[in-house]
Amino acid sequence: MQYRIAIVGYGNIGRFALEAVEAADDFVLTGVVRRTASLDRIPPELQDYPVAGSINELGKVDVALLCVPSRAVPEYAREILSAGVNTVDSYDIHGELVRLKKELDPVAREHNCVSVISAGWDPGTDSMIRGIFEFMAPHGLTHTNFGPGMSMGHTVAAKAIPGVKNALAMTIPAGAGVHRRMVYVELEQGAEFDRVAEAIKADPYFRVDATTVIPVHRVERLIDTGHGVMMERKGVSGKTHNQRFRYEMRVNNPALTAQIMVAAARAGLRQKPGCYTMLEIPVIDYLYGERDELLNRLV
Amino acid sequence: MQYRIAIVGYGNIGRFALEAVEAADDFVLTGVVRRTASLDRIPPELQDYPVAGSINELGKVDVALLCVPSRAVPEYAREILSAGVNTVDSYDIHGELVRLKKELDPVAREHNCVSVISAGWDPGTDSMIRGIFEFMAPHGLTHTNFGPGMSMGHTVAAKAIPGVKNALAMTIPAGAGVHRRMVYVELEQGAEFDRVAEAIKADPYFRVDATTVIPVHRVERLIDTGHGVMMERKGVSGKTHNQRFRYEMRVNNPALTAQIMVAAARAGLRQKPGCYTMLEIPVIDYLYGERDELLNRLV
Repeated sequence: MQYRIAIVGYGNIGRFALEAVEAADDFVLTGVVRRTASLDRIPPELQDYPVAGSINELGKVDVALLCVPSRAVPEYAREILSAGVNTVDSYDIHGELVRLKKELDPVAREHNCVSVISAGWDPGTDSMIRGIFEFMAPHGLTHTNFGPGMSMGHTVAAKAIPGVKNALAMTIPAGAGVHRRMVYVELEQGAEFDRVAEAIKADPYFRVDATTVIPVHRVERLIDTGHGVMMERKGVSGKTHNQRFRYEMRVNNPALTAQIMVAAARAGLRQKPGCYTMLEIPVIDYLYGERDELLNRLV
Repeated sequence: MQYRIAIVGYGNIGRFALEAVEAADDFVLTGVVRRTASLDRIPPELQDYPVAGSINELGKVDVALLCVPSRAVPEYAREILSAGVNTVDSYDIHGELVRLKKELDPVAREHNCVSVISAGWDPGTDSMIRGIFEFMAPHGLTHTNFGPGMSMGHTVAAKAIPGVKNALAMTIPAGAGVHRRMVYVELEQGAEFDRVAEAIKADPYFRVDATTVIPVHRVERLIDTGHGVMMERKGVSGKTHNQRFRYEMRVNNPALTAQIMVAAARAGLRQKPGCYTMLEIPVIDYLYGERDELLNRLV
């Protein structure tokens, strides 16, 4: 049985979502939703698929991957869930997540479908591993160190600042879960660097961290989508101290995000109606394959 | 609200289970079940708790931690589930797990309770992380490297060999998921070393790995319960190769196992009747605390 999946938004994540869907045995791509403006310039890899301005034009869809900026997720999710279609997003505004869940949960239930929110690597799989580390050693500290790598969320936020033609926001780990941000900006004609730098530093994405803004001629030549995480916990199991846990990954960032979204789409199809974060779904539901075979192999 | 928990079996894991229960805010220890023979020698840390020969003597119990050898788990689990009490075990005979699940599932359902099996670090949390690694990069290889450290399962198996007075089985990582076993044995009077060594090497726990058996005068002086895991996956997300993941822990082994059993007891109380492995329960259910607060903090 193959489920019908649609990709909504065809930017950085959308392109990798196409590859992840094509590589998955249990999904078939129903089509891609793009802004009307992009419809006449169809890239070659989409020639064999319907490309539409709205998901309603794609026929039956079981689940939609919302590959749109975080800030646009709530509206797309509400609309698509209201049509009875499951959604998966990689909403990454950490503090707003529970609010989004509470907003989408009744919509999903009413329309008998499932929304999996914040399905990426952080929030997402990192959150799952943070949770596992915490129940293995309930007292102690976890530090999540990101990078060095390009932060897609921060890059989108920097690009949205007036006067910025193109930008690259790098996350630099400073140890113990503290980070610096390095933002490389290409200015629009006539834009004043100091004002742009101040606006970036005042943005909610940047104001919590030490941020350095650097003007460059061509941002494009700096871009590499490799990223990493190093998460550490030192804590107490029962009354035994000095229990040590460490998780590390070095990955192509959008490829991993897209792959996790496809896994979350699969998991969503196995849940009862409602809105879920990745922490609220059993690990086995994300995996393709026969259940007993998976248990025999993984357990 | 505090749940009433019992510890069944008071060996290595049982002692650490006592500490993990005492450290948990949501459980109260109802008592400890020991073999009748041990009932007149009550260790000081158990003075304040009921110690009984059977769980039926402990009054109302919500969940029992089966801190008994793997081979004894099926019988204890069937009996206690039949009394309508949840169980948690750390059954570690990998190939037999699905069979145990199928055996206990109908018993748990019939008596309206929950059994969480193989709740330890491997199988257990390692299985969860293997699953997460696999859905992040569905094609590729995972290697789980254990040790150096004392394997409790292998040590129990070695001690059960005729002629062995005391034993310590160490797991030595040889890379790429291959291991050697080093077994230090103290012989019983008159036992012949060569026969003992052959019997150990022929045991199902040992015959799959290169095993060295070494005679020693006092096993006791060699024992340190530190252990470790280093799990690596290199795989493909969508069509992007060379995605790298690594998980490492260095811990006191029985303390971690006992802590995970307590977390699994909590998680079991949140599931519908049936038998579960750790892969089949959402991460959040293992954690103590208010759900929205957990999501805000971990996601």
